[in-house]
Amino acid sequence: MPQIQVGVLGATGAVGQRFCQLLEGHPWFEVAALAASERSAGKHYQDAVDWRLSTPIPEGLRELRIIPTRADDMPKDVKIVFSSLPADIAAQVEAEYAREGFVVSSNAASYRMFDDVPLLIPEVNKEHAKLIPLQRDQRGWDGCIVTNPNCSTIMLAMTLKPLMGLGLTDVKVATLQAVSGAGYTGVSSMAILDNVVPYIGGEEEKMQNEPPKLLGTFNGERIINADITVSAICNRVPVIDGHTESVWVDVVASPEQVKEAMASLEPLIGLPFSPKRPIVVRDEDDRPQPRLDRDVNHGMTVSVGRVRRDVVKGIKYTLLGHNTVRGAAGASILNAEMLADAGYLT
Amino acid sequence: MPQIQVGVLGATGAVGQRFCQLLEGHPWFEVAALAASERSAGKHYQDAVDWRLSTPIPEGLRELRIIPTRADDMPKDVKIVFSSLPADIAAQVEAEYAREGFVVSSNAASYRMFDDVPLLIPEVNKEHAKLIPLQRDQRGWDGCIVTNPNCSTIMLAMTLKPLMGLGLTDVKVATLQAVSGAGYTGVSSMAILDNVVPYIGGEEEKMQNEPPKLLGTFNGERIINADITVSAICNRVPVIDGHTESVWVDVVASPEQVKEAMASLEPLIGLPFSPKRPIVVRDEDDRPQPRLDRDVNHGMTVSVGRVRRDVVKGIKYTLLGHNTVRGAAGASILNAEMLADAGYLT
Amino acid sequence: MPQIQVGVLGATGAVGQRFCQLLEGHPWFEVAALAASERSAGKHYQDAVDWRLSTPIPEGLRELRIIPTRADDMPKDVKIVFSSLPADIAAQVEAEYAREGFVVSSNAASYRMFDDVPLLIPEVNKEHAKLIPLQRDQRGWDGCIVTNPNCSTIMLAMTLKPLMGLGLTDVKVATLQAVSGAGYTGVSSMAILDNVVPYIGGEEEKMQNEPPKLLGTFNGERIINADITVSAICNRVPVIDGHTESVWVDVVASPEQVKEAMASLEPLIGLPFSPKRPIVVRDEDDRPQPRLDRDVNHGMTVSVGRVRRDVVKGIKYTLLGHNTVRGAAGASILNAEMLADAGYLT
Amino acid sequence: MPQIQVGVLGATGAVGQRFCQLLEGHPWFEVAALAASERSAGKHYQDAVDWRLSTPIPEGLRELRIIPTRADDMPKDVKIVFSSLPADIAAQVEAEYAREGFVVSSNAASYRMFDDVPLLIPEVNKEHAKLIPLQRDQRGWDGCIVTNPNCSTIMLAMTLKPLMGLGLTDVKVATLQAVSGAGYTGVSSMAILDNVVPYIGGEEEKMQNEPPKLLGTFNGERIINADITVSAICNRVPVIDGHTESVWVDVVASPEQVKEAMASLEPLIGLPFSPKRPIVVRDEDDRPQPRLDRDVNHGMTVSVGRVRRDVVKGIKYTLLGHNTVRGAAGASILNAEMLADAGYLT
Repeated sequence: MPQIQVGVLGATGAVGQRFCQLLEGHPWFEVAALAASERSAGKHYQDAVDWRLSTPIPEGLRELRIIPTRADDMPKDVKIVFSSLPADIAAQVEAEYAREGFVVSSNAASYRMFDDVPLLIPEVNKEHAKLIPLQRDQRGWDGCIVTNPNCSTIMLAMTLKPLMGLGLTDVKVATLQAVSGAGYTGVSSMAILDNVVPYIGGEEEKMQNEPPKLLGTFNGERIINADITVSAICNRVPVIDGHTESVWVDVVASPEQVKEAMASLEPLIGLPFSPKRPIVVRDEDDRPQPRLDRDVNHGMTVSVGRVRRDVVKGIKYTLLGHNTVRGAAGASILNAEMLADAGYLT
Repeated sequence: MPQIQVGVLGATGAVGQRFCQLLEGHPWFEVAALAASERSAGKHYQDAVDWRLSTPIPEGLRELRIIPTRADDMPKDVKIVFSSLPADIAAQVEAEYAREGFVVSSNAASYRMFDDVPLLIPEVNKEHAKLIPLQRDQRGWDGCIVTNPNCSTIMLAMTLKPLMGLGLTDVKVATLQAVSGAGYTGVSSMAILDNVVPYIGGEEEKMQNEPPKLLGTFNGERIINADITVSAICNRVPVIDGHTESVWVDVVASPEQVKEAMASLEPLIGLPFSPKRPIVVRDEDDRPQPRLDRDVNHGMTVSVGRVRRDVVKGIKYTLLGHNTVRGAAGASILNAEMLADAGYLT
Repeated sequence: MPQIQVGVLGATGAVGQRFCQLLEGHPWFEVAALAASERSAGKHYQDAVDWRLSTPIPEGLRELRIIPTRADDMPKDVKIVFSSLPADIAAQVEAEYAREGFVVSSNAASYRMFDDVPLLIPEVNKEHAKLIPLQRDQRGWDGCIVTNPNCSTIMLAMTLKPLMGLGLTDVKVATLQAVSGAGYTGVSSMAILDNVVPYIGGEEEKMQNEPPKLLGTFNGERIINADITVSAICNRVPVIDGHTESVWVDVVASPEQVKEAMASLEPLIGLPFSPKRPIVVRDEDDRPQPRLDRDVNHGMTVSVGRVRRDVVKGIKYTLLGHNTVRGAAGASILNAEMLADAGYLT
Repeated sequence: MPQIQVGVLGATGAVGQRFCQLLEGHPWFEVAALAASERSAGKHYQDAVDWRLSTPIPEGLRELRIIPTRADDMPKDVKIVFSSLPADIAAQVEAEYAREGFVVSSNAASYRMFDDVPLLIPEVNKEHAKLIPLQRDQRGWDGCIVTNPNCSTIMLAMTLKPLMGLGLTDVKVATLQAVSGAGYTGVSSMAILDNVVPYIGGEEEKMQNEPPKLLGTFNGERIINADITVSAICNRVPVIDGHTESVWVDVVASPEQVKEAMASLEPLIGLPFSPKRPIVVRDEDDRPQPRLDRDVNHGMTVSVGRVRRDVVKGIKYTLLGHNTVRGAAGASILNAEMLADAGYLT
């Protein structure tokens, strides 16, 4: 695979920083451009960013000059742009990039639910990428937009996929979400120290709406949604990184069958960001835990534990994933790897 | 009501300290004896206790000498003993006290599920106190044992009671529980800082087993369990006090009917620890929260919020209560007040 | 004392909320007006404020309509205004109020170091109020401005005052400050969870500059600064309320003399907010602690512990005070009480 | 360097776990034996340990059978034992090992202050290792004991060493220490959530007593203590890993000279655990911070910031180091590397 030049939109934000961190030393992708708001444009990255990760700013990016967010300003040898733009800005800017021929791998919510836009998790529904030719055709774009789901949905959907063959119908999920999901200034310390906030704006809707599409099947023309219902209650807890989810699923299967099915979810051989085991199932009573398990396989593996029979029927379990890696930047990178590998780059 | 002398068993523990704090200045009850382990017996209370509450040790208790836990050592003019003993010790000691004529108001789990022992929340099932004559008769005791439910069950059951008339069948609940529920040394800081522990030993079983008895009806001879099922997933979070619960209930009612029913749960007029509103229903999106709402009505009120329709049918909501007040010491005190008021003291 | 009408400037902010909370039921002062930014003006207080305290909004203030911050809009029967305005706005607005005849009791930094403005802690330097006639004369004001020191300075200065007679010269202090000191959105959760921030902008300068004035003497014309030096290192820690300070003082005295002197600091008899003991000295090894000691005497007492000889000479100790009560709103209220009592109201 | 077999004493404890984690894949040392209490002896390591680190138990150690702590049970081909035993047990056991010919690299406090026992930080005083022949001679041991200082002392002493040539005399230091320093169950969550504990038993004495020896000079026969005084105030804060220290030093030097001197502290070329820069000096106002800087160079580098002139004379600064890596297990490993490299293994 020859080196592919990539750009990052929203490069100074919390997820933008994760993109920069995770792409350092990537075997296929080289960060050639960082875009951010007008206020930052023209500055060296290290002067514009309030870097908040525990590894240093990648050497090669420190003195890269930030460019504006417009597609016009993006160098033409860049093939892929990663977007962590706010949803309202993403709606316009991502289309502009796709029109100009870029492959946009987006973490933003704007295009997730459009019929012709893949909502992708490679281990779950890689065949949904086949929407791309339709999208290009329909919109007259040379490039394209692919999206990854909302952070808490990704982890959930990865554990639901193996249950589709076990009669899955209803899902109930209560989340305990980390503060990093809201961005660097999203949750004030006075809001969350010694506290829980039982509400995250828009999050329950995303968790309820995205899984039927994600777990749906591509019939050659469009996605037929999966016939499942998800009901979510979302909470914020004083944890830096790592979303925990308490899950009930209506399936016709024993705990052993569920564990076996989850542990067997297939990785994508050959993609650098594909963890060799997408799901690790643990047997200890008190795992998974965010501080201990969020970094398994560099944050790309989802940990599952406490799989057991529910009171009357069905199964309950707990899952844990790194929200800004598997749930955001790492998810977009894995999507881009899959597209590169499958020949979708123009 | 003349002053009634009371004792506290397990007086140096976390819940024991709450008993001492809450009973300070009580209009009916006067703490006349504090019992603890052999190691503490004979010491002044202030020298034996590692006091961890933010109000000082009650003046009158500082120099009280601790007595051993045996019923023999308890002064005979004490009428009620409050027990926060560990379950294994409580099993033997509480029976000994009841045999000796004391009314035991227990926060321990040992006797909760016995057929002839009331599992009481005055606002929910005060008629269950009618088991006491049967208990005395059957066991040949002059005294008696009454129990309050597990902390997270109390709050949940208070919100379920008003739903019994709205067709309640199934309940699913995920908890986010405070560390104080495990006692002072129960949860190490390394276990919970920047973390969630998705397991609390025995807690889910209690939350699943206790509500059918609690919400059952007394038919003159015994409790007929309510025909509901509860499924719980319990989590520990980095919060000092206050359990939050995410709840789904299968009922045939609108959110407005549910809110109205909950807000109408009746207080027990005249009992000092009965809050004038057992449940407060809030309309803000992001309430209740433990740090802001746990102390409503001195910690005796349960706060409910986010009452809304579930995806297909039923209702979901969030509840919050103070686990060591409404969920433990305050619950036992309210039970004792009810017994005193109803003439059960010998 | 007849009821005195008061106003609060910056009423929706973190300290403004504390003013409203603490003034509820005040025996002398009645909140008659709440002022805030143009954006809030005209709204009911309960609709404009994002109330973040664990007691509810005072009943009488919920539906009070917010007025703009200008002195013109303040009702003329208001005698005292409490200000928690940002320093840049306070500089202009407070002077305007003083000119219009109001007594301004300010928590803002703008006027603290002016020669004719008292920097007051009643238990420390109440005679500095004698600057007021000079201030009025010099500036041609009917009203006046009095200020309280920076939060971490107040607690420190209260413990230094008793040492002035014991040869105090040099002071070194390292602080561990609560997040509430930065206002509701001042410290993001990602900045402080599992972390310490070893810097608070402007704080060290305030702690170093204010004490010499505070502990100085009024010679009939002006304040002669005390001849001491203070060196501060300020840190932010993940604590909601309560600043802890590690202090070294160069004094010629035994630990017993220091403890005795501190415990003897005199309260202001008859002022509602004056705690009966301004400083409590504790003997336990591990006290004071913010969570356990910040609320002593409703947050108006400073707790001192670990008073002991330093390695070569001098004394070291630890102090703790509630930063938004004793260190901010409560301090301004106590100042206003002192002025009312001493006849400074016009 | 041929592979050297090593053992770990106290292998199931918090520091013991760090030894196991850090020694995984070590280029010189191979863990051949894990010793722990009688209760654990005979079990597989993975069954005896309550592993609490975020990387998994090293593959090769999972099924290693734990041996008792006695020197008799240690395989004879082991050359070095790392000790994180409690001080009272270490006093006897470590001597037994040294007598039997093992090199003991100890993190325990028992032998630190003995005249013939090196208290070593390789970058600071590697010539103190020359005490070993004297120790062997005097005690008739074939092996030897070397110790590393207390965690908070190590970081401090590394920053003081470069100041010895700048006229260093007095040091004052206030610490903000992480909970991991107290071991896994040392600090309860109820003690530290939303709190500071201004006391750590024995810590201040260690910080005051160890630096003069550490910074002293070996005159061919013994260590002549450095003529400096250290005064410490130690606090515990809600941080998992990483001690922060606020430091005042009496030196005759400018901030630039101090920074230059610190940044120039020499690494030990060729030792695997020697970071290429023992001290990193930062210029940002708000660094170092534990969550962002504790892992610099795998936790072996100390970060310094806020170097500036003090009020009257001298310099103040902030330092940060990883307490269980640079301050404990990593320190012992680096000491052992130095001894191996210098030919002290028997």
